[in-house]
Amino acid sequence: MSVHIISKDIQETYLDIKGDILKTPLQYSAKLSKISGAKVFLKMEHLQYTGSFKIRGVIGKIKSLEKNDFQKVFVAASSGNHAVAFAYASEKFGFEGVLFMPKNVNNVKKDTLKTSKIKKYLYGKNNMEAEAKATAYAKENGSVLIHPYNDPEIIKGQGTIGIEILEQFPEVDTVLAPVGGGGLISGLCSSFNDDKVNIIACQPVNAPEMYESVKCGKIVPPSKLFTIADATAGGIEADSLTFEICKNQLDDFELVNENEIKKAIAFIFNHHKTIIEPGAALPVAALLNTKRYKGKNVVLVLTGKRIEPHLLTKIINDYGNSY
Amino acid sequence: MSVHIISKDIQETYLDIKGDILKTPLQYSAKLSKISGAKVFLKMEHLQYTGSFKIRGVIGKIKSLEKNDFQKVFVAASSGNHAVAFAYASEKFGFEGVLFMPKNVNNVKKDTLKTSKIKKYLYGKNNMEAEAKATAYAKENGSVLIHPYNDPEIIKGQGTIGIEILEQFPEVDTVLAPVGGGGLISGLCSSFNDDKVNIIACQPVNAPEMYESVKCGKIVPPSKLFTIADATAGGIEADSLTFEICKNQLDDFELVNENEIKKAIAFIFNHHKTIIEPGAALPVAALLNTKRYKGKNVVLVLTGKRIEPHLLTKIINDYGNSY
Repeated sequence: MSVHIISKDIQETYLDIKGDILKTPLQYSAKLSKISGAKVFLKMEHLQYTGSFKIRGVIGKIKSLEKNDFQKVFVAASSGNHAVAFAYASEKFGFEGVLFMPKNVNNVKKDTLKTSKIKKYLYGKNNMEAEAKATAYAKENGSVLIHPYNDPEIIKGQGTIGIEILEQFPEVDTVLAPVGGGGLISGLCSSFNDDKVNIIACQPVNAPEMYESVKCGKIVPPSKLFTIADATAGGIEADSLTFEICKNQLDDFELVNENEIKKAIAFIFNHHKTIIEPGAALPVAALLNTKRYKGKNVVLVLTGKRIEPHLLTKIINDYGNSY
Repeated sequence: MSVHIISKDIQETYLDIKGDILKTPLQYSAKLSKISGAKVFLKMEHLQYTGSFKIRGVIGKIKSLEKNDFQKVFVAASSGNHAVAFAYASEKFGFEGVLFMPKNVNNVKKDTLKTSKIKKYLYGKNNMEAEAKATAYAKENGSVLIHPYNDPEIIKGQGTIGIEILEQFPEVDTVLAPVGGGGLISGLCSSFNDDKVNIIACQPVNAPEMYESVKCGKIVPPSKLFTIADATAGGIEADSLTFEICKNQLDDFELVNENEIKKAIAFIFNHHKTIIEPGAALPVAALLNTKRYKGKNVVLVLTGKRIEPHLLTKIINDYGNSY
């Protein structure tokens, strides 16, 4: 299977969605620049509507549909940011939504969706199983599947971040972003599909599915280890487009451990006074631990802000003075 | 003394500064809307470059200067957001800066300015005394004074928030914002200088200088009580333009106590996953405690995000479940 999404397609998606999303700020980080020796900017996608970049893909997909698709039921699987974006879009675009969440979803996440009118079901022991259920449901019922990553329209939507980065910092030569299912990183690879900008995927040591899959040349099963970076954990669907794109177009990986993730959250809180979720901290953690990007013009994509209050306060108390 | 800044002037200032500031998002708050019975949006000025709206006034002032003014030394007084904006502008526009901070400035605030090349001096026991020193210094040395509020150019800069609000939510009929020296609230009064939009100034019960001054018809001395909302405390300079504007154009006041401020910070953290400083929490606290704005189209201006980490974590732990 060969997959190639061109940046021109992403520009078209951007025109379709830009009225419905926030052009998020790109913020210079003096402290990260000093530590890494690079010129470092933060792409503040955690300030995006719904609290994460996921809304770009969801709206990109919705804008690609035919008019009569809106008579159908829309179905998605997620317990996190994709679910929030899906629920938001359901209200905004007026479709009937069905959502499958893995059974291990915690109460904070469930509460976030409490007021939404979409129908919610618990299914499977991880995101991958809930996703398979959503795919099967869509097939059986003729529903519109809003997949969290395995869909060219979703990938193009996430790729619109690249268009904004290029406008906000034309000298960019390196982009670090988290990878889970790979929708965002595939969008970035497609958006910057030349040799001028290196795309680096960041993953927890405890859940390195895309890293290992690319190394093995085939999709590996999800890790059984725990990571606080839940947004990037949960496995990759078989035959995912994103795996093909990562295999062929990604420049490199960075793996970070749990303590490094926590320190990165505390760092961003201390020096930028803003809240990021553990998944969003992966690129920050990577940069805090290497001089590899010295002299580069680097953008870190901060992907979301869903963190449990008690985890955040514990991290600030434990790691507040690390940097 | 009669002071009247017209909205057309503010539109001109906006054209001058818009390339240098962030058009901050306006975010709907479902939960605050439900509690208050109003339609409530948050103007996220705490996400502004430098972490507060203050940069609007500082850049507005700078853009109003003559070319040869840039040969002079620039002087300011502040220990907080105005100081950060001043230091940022010094780097961006390449002027030599002198800053007076009151002697009681805490270490967190001092640290924020540590890497800036501006010269820093401690003077006086509160903002008002440091401001008087800066004014005298500017007079003696022929320097350019960048006052935190008592300057029509500063007021016009802060007023540009009103232009964005009107574009983002044309149905707005009520704006609540914190008041300290009064630069922001005077800018808002001037920006919305018709009867269609009511401007409500929010102040801590423990530091109600503008409220009492307007009631008395003359500027009263600063309160001696402590408030965590330090951004709005510290007294008003004699003969301030802002006092004249507040006296004549402000629609009403809201006073809130220390516990209400803390609960409002926790509320914004829980429901919007974003960090605001105590000063920025004043309008939120006001709205959480009244049904007076039921049916109104309300915007709350969140002014800044400078809060000490240990205060924030204590507030989240103590008040995390208030709403």
